[in-house]
Amino acid sequence: MAEQRIIATYHLSSDASRIEDRALRLAIEQSVECPLDAVPEQRILDDIVGRVDEISEIASGYYKVRIALAAATAPPEAGQLLNMLFGNCSIQSDVELIDVELPADYLTAFGGPRIGLAGIRERTGAEGRALTASALKPQGLSPDALAAIAQRLALGGVDLIKDDHGIADQAYSPFAERAAAVGRAVRAAGEQRGRPVLYAPHVSGSLDDMRRQLDIVRRERIGGVMLIPMIVGLSNFQALVREADGLVVLAHPAMAGAARIAPPLLLGKLFRLLGADATVFPHHGGRFAYTPQTCRDLAAAACGAWGGLKPCLPVPGGGVTIDRVAELLQFYGRDVMLLIGGSLLAARDELRERAVEFTAEVAAHVVADGGVGHDR
Amino acid sequence: MAEQRIIATYHLSSDASRIEDRALRLAIEQSVECPLDAVPEQRILDDIVGRVDEISEIASGYYKVRIALAAATAPPEAGQLLNMLFGNCSIQSDVELIDVELPADYLTAFGGPRIGLAGIRERTGAEGRALTASALKPQGLSPDALAAIAQRLALGGVDLIKDDHGIADQAYSPFAERAAAVGRAVRAAGEQRGRPVLYAPHVSGSLDDMRRQLDIVRRERIGGVMLIPMIVGLSNFQALVREADGLVVLAHPAMAGAARIAPPLLLGKLFRLLGADATVFPHHGGRFAYTPQTCRDLAAAACGAWGGLKPCLPVPGGGVTIDRVAELLQFYGRDVMLLIGGSLLAARDELRERAVEFTAEVAAHVVADGGVGHDR
Repeated sequence: MAEQRIIATYHLSSDASRIEDRALRLAIEQSVECPLDAVPEQRILDDIVGRVDEISEIASGYYKVRIALAAATAPPEAGQLLNMLFGNCSIQSDVELIDVELPADYLTAFGGPRIGLAGIRERTGAEGRALTASALKPQGLSPDALAAIAQRLALGGVDLIKDDHGIADQAYSPFAERAAAVGRAVRAAGEQRGRPVLYAPHVSGSLDDMRRQLDIVRRERIGGVMLIPMIVGLSNFQALVREADGLVVLAHPAMAGAARIAPPLLLGKLFRLLGADATVFPHHGGRFAYTPQTCRDLAAAACGAWGGLKPCLPVPGGGVTIDRVAELLQFYGRDVMLLIGGSLLAARDELRERAVEFTAEVAAHVVADGGVGHDR
Repeated sequence: MAEQRIIATYHLSSDASRIEDRALRLAIEQSVECPLDAVPEQRILDDIVGRVDEISEIASGYYKVRIALAAATAPPEAGQLLNMLFGNCSIQSDVELIDVELPADYLTAFGGPRIGLAGIRERTGAEGRALTASALKPQGLSPDALAAIAQRLALGGVDLIKDDHGIADQAYSPFAERAAAVGRAVRAAGEQRGRPVLYAPHVSGSLDDMRRQLDIVRRERIGGVMLIPMIVGLSNFQALVREADGLVVLAHPAMAGAARIAPPLLLGKLFRLLGADATVFPHHGGRFAYTPQTCRDLAAAACGAWGGLKPCLPVPGGGVTIDRVAELLQFYGRDVMLLIGGSLLAARDELRERAVEFTAEVAAHVVADGGVGHDR
């Protein structure tokens, strides 16, 4: 155990003359966090202090640095892993966290998705095609009004319906009433259309709050939950995944930041590692600034081969419209769930028809068994 | 309640020709998150959609924007408040969150520090002068080795001793054994020197993990705890503060980022609001990139007048050395706790003597009753 290392890859901005020193200081910051002459035991210098394994120049003044962190400092506990990877250096503006390679037993310990891509296909009967999702909006609506929207989306053929991430446990739509009303509506719509609909209400607050909400989810026979890992805290996300056995877990990217932790690592790899069955992220060209390459890498990290972990379903959204369906399916292949929220809802009274249009458009595209998830 | 508004101040990078549209899109993103023509009720347009209250140019292409968010969307629950303030727009690289003004009842609901600056003075007998703190490092040491360091720091006169933030619940220093050993050492040293020493072990993991650790803290009659709010999640930080009644709560800045949420707001104002009695942050000129103005504003936000909230003690550290004590006391005034970790520990066998030097240097500076906390 003492010799096991976690390989963290960072990008560093630095003068060429200072990069070796800068990389060493980063390795120290993310391990013993003190001058090396304050380390009183040789064993700690050998087995605990972070080690700079490789420095390579990416562009002038911009470097890729691989640092080997002692696994003993960050056992498979999600919060502490994040702490050692990026805790203090998140406050250093010249550092970005790009990738992490973990010892094999970490994959076993964290476990990854319980249901994953194949399980979501099975639960929704969506085989051989891309999947579809939509969001309940706008916040401010009552549980019944949200349930009416959910019903129309479900009858329009959507596979999964999630709460808008801003909808939590507010007075105008308390979690218990909302989950009950929407849960009933999607169950009824599923029976009517002859194929189940997944609903993922937004579970939020402290671990206690989330547990109370999880009880309601089970009582109302709802099939999924959505969490915001970077707000509830990774350790609590990890804890809740374990308790949400049998439920589809969606991870939402709020508070994940734009770039300081590379989105493919955070939203793809780490959320998958901790058990997200599906990961929501903004596709490029919408309201957010991800590049096509970021989206491609994120989807590959979520559903590409990785030890024995099940694939996590990529869910691009964030301002996507129906006229981009063909483009997105071309981009991601069929192992993807397209999320269209606001632009469906703008149809108002024709919401069901617009949803039919969306799901038919997705179904019409028979995509070859390729795409980003299969590139690696 | 429907009319109550939270005023969030953002900085936005934008062309002059697009700033009005950009500000409106931000107000929508942080509220209903959908096109306004998808909002089916006038009441939601009036009472729920974010409102752009003010746009002013700070520099060419850089604007200050005040947005009034409906308080109903973010009741006094810490995670949801953060979600509505910065959840989605954290993924938009042109946005920084600068300040928040909350309705008065939020201050009552969250409650702020339970013990605060005056309570920490009282518990340590440190009256009429600045306070001193140090950190137990490096990680990798055994509980007994850390306890020996704590003892020497305490006998050297340090008021508060905290775990290094990387020290959690690792195999080489399990929380229970460490808290017991260090707790005993600081109690004994406190009796020997005739003045109590505060110890704040790092409490981490899920809310369940933290509760188990809190039980140990109470059993070992330890006076404080340190948490990383941005890793444990603000809602769980809020929950733990309530359960840590009678204990001094230190907030640590790991994962707080460099600037996307202004440090004075996050580490000063928000951590104080949620109940941090003391807030650790990097002083400028050490290993981190904060400017003097950021540090000044942060300390003022932590301990300046704010409704009925108790002052939260500013704890600058992050590479501070003894030869900077005079400069820091000049800068912060006496309502501050100076944190020196690594550079004391480098003294190794003369650790106690170096700690004496540090605490004597602080005591020697009789600082006028001024400083940043009193500027506003």
